[in-house]
Amino acid sequence: MSAMAFFSITPIGKEESVSKYVARVVKKVEESGLQWTLTPMGTIIEGETLEDVLKVINEGAEELKDCNRLSISIKIDYRRDRQSGMGNKVKSVMNKIDEVR
Amino acid sequence: MSAMAFFSITPIGKEESVSKYVARVVKKVEESGLQWTLTPMGTIIEGETLEDVLKVINEGAEELKDCNRLSISIKIDYRRDRQSGMGNKVKSVMNKIDEVR
Amino acid sequence: MSAMAFFSITPIGKEESVSKYVARVVKKVEESGLQWTLTPMGTIIEGETLEDVLKVINEGAEELKDCNRLSISIKIDYRRDRQSGMGNKVKSVMNKIDEVR
Amino acid sequence: MSAMAFFSITPIGKEESVSKYVARVVKKVEESGLQWTLTPMGTIIEGETLEDVLKVINEGAEELKDCNRLSISIKIDYRRDRQSGMGNKVKSVMNKIDEVR
Repeated sequence: MSAMAFFSITPIGKEESVSKYVARVVKKVEESGLQWTLTPMGTIIEGETLEDVLKVINEGAEELKDCNRLSISIKIDYRRDRQSGMGNKVKSVMNKIDEVR
Repeated sequence: MSAMAFFSITPIGKEESVSKYVARVVKKVEESGLQWTLTPMGTIIEGETLEDVLKVINEGAEELKDCNRLSISIKIDYRRDRQSGMGNKVKSVMNKIDEVR
Repeated sequence: MSAMAFFSITPIGKEESVSKYVARVVKKVEESGLQWTLTPMGTIIEGETLEDVLKVINEGAEELKDCNRLSISIKIDYRRDRQSGMGNKVKSVMNKIDEVR
Repeated sequence: MSAMAFFSITPIGKEESVSKYVARVVKKVEESGLQWTLTPMGTIIEGETLEDVLKVINEGAEELKDCNRLSISIKIDYRRDRQSGMGNKVKSVMNKIDEVR
């Protein structure tokens, strides 16, 4: 079983640059102990269950108590029958790109 | 304080028509007691906190135990300083459309 | 063939209330002639092809030239073999909720 | 000016594993000449304008003519006043994480 989530938390009504807020959220992700990676468009985390990843996203949002309004986007790949693994998913696609070139 | 979430839960690897799965998720939403409305592209729910709405989305996904793989999309508007209210948000935009016509 | 899109366009770095910007985008949607409906979390449009709906979303974003930074979320249901129709999709789920109650 | 998009295109009604379809979409991205990177949850592309990136996403979806139904998720960061650059965005957050540790 594996729940992988791509998410972003963006303050609305604050400055145009939001990286200092994103950094505070990523620090909470780091503390969670889950596997994570930072991309230019959001953070990807992986946990055993959906509840695990939603809990960390909730903690990340609650870290930004100084923001009155947050826009949160989440995309989740929830697989009950196997562990996905971040590296495996990318490798599985890259190998197949060679086949279709 | 108000957390409003637009979400959709789509089984991957099942039939092209997913409405019977969506219906089972919406039934869980109904049972949650939260405010909700069904749109052609997903369900919108509103709760007091982010944790409230994430809990219901988790319950909806866990309802589909017979689906090995789920793709879950969530967009959340989280406001700490006020109650949003589904009707108010739509009215607030519609009134302003008249102003810009 | 039918492409149905749920989308939202949110200015970053502007005020906390964004309804006046959303109203200007919805006015562009109105002018496009596509089927549309406004929800508390975003606008839903339906066109014949994916290109149709992406064109309208692009026009909506380009309407907000006074916004330096926009966060755009789009979720699309693209069906090559049939017309979806906004009403049909909601009805199809609501009928099935009765079956699972 | 820079439009950065995180997107995923998932066939509905096909197999549980979708990597062979993702590979065909990524090949179209490669051919587009835009900057791109593959993540475990989707592909990130960057272009000069919103129209540029939406065009490539459209081409990716139209590559999958053998799929009757596609679920497409797109998140876009559109900045009119500067070039974002994928590397810069990640570096800007990572530097700030050190400050908040």
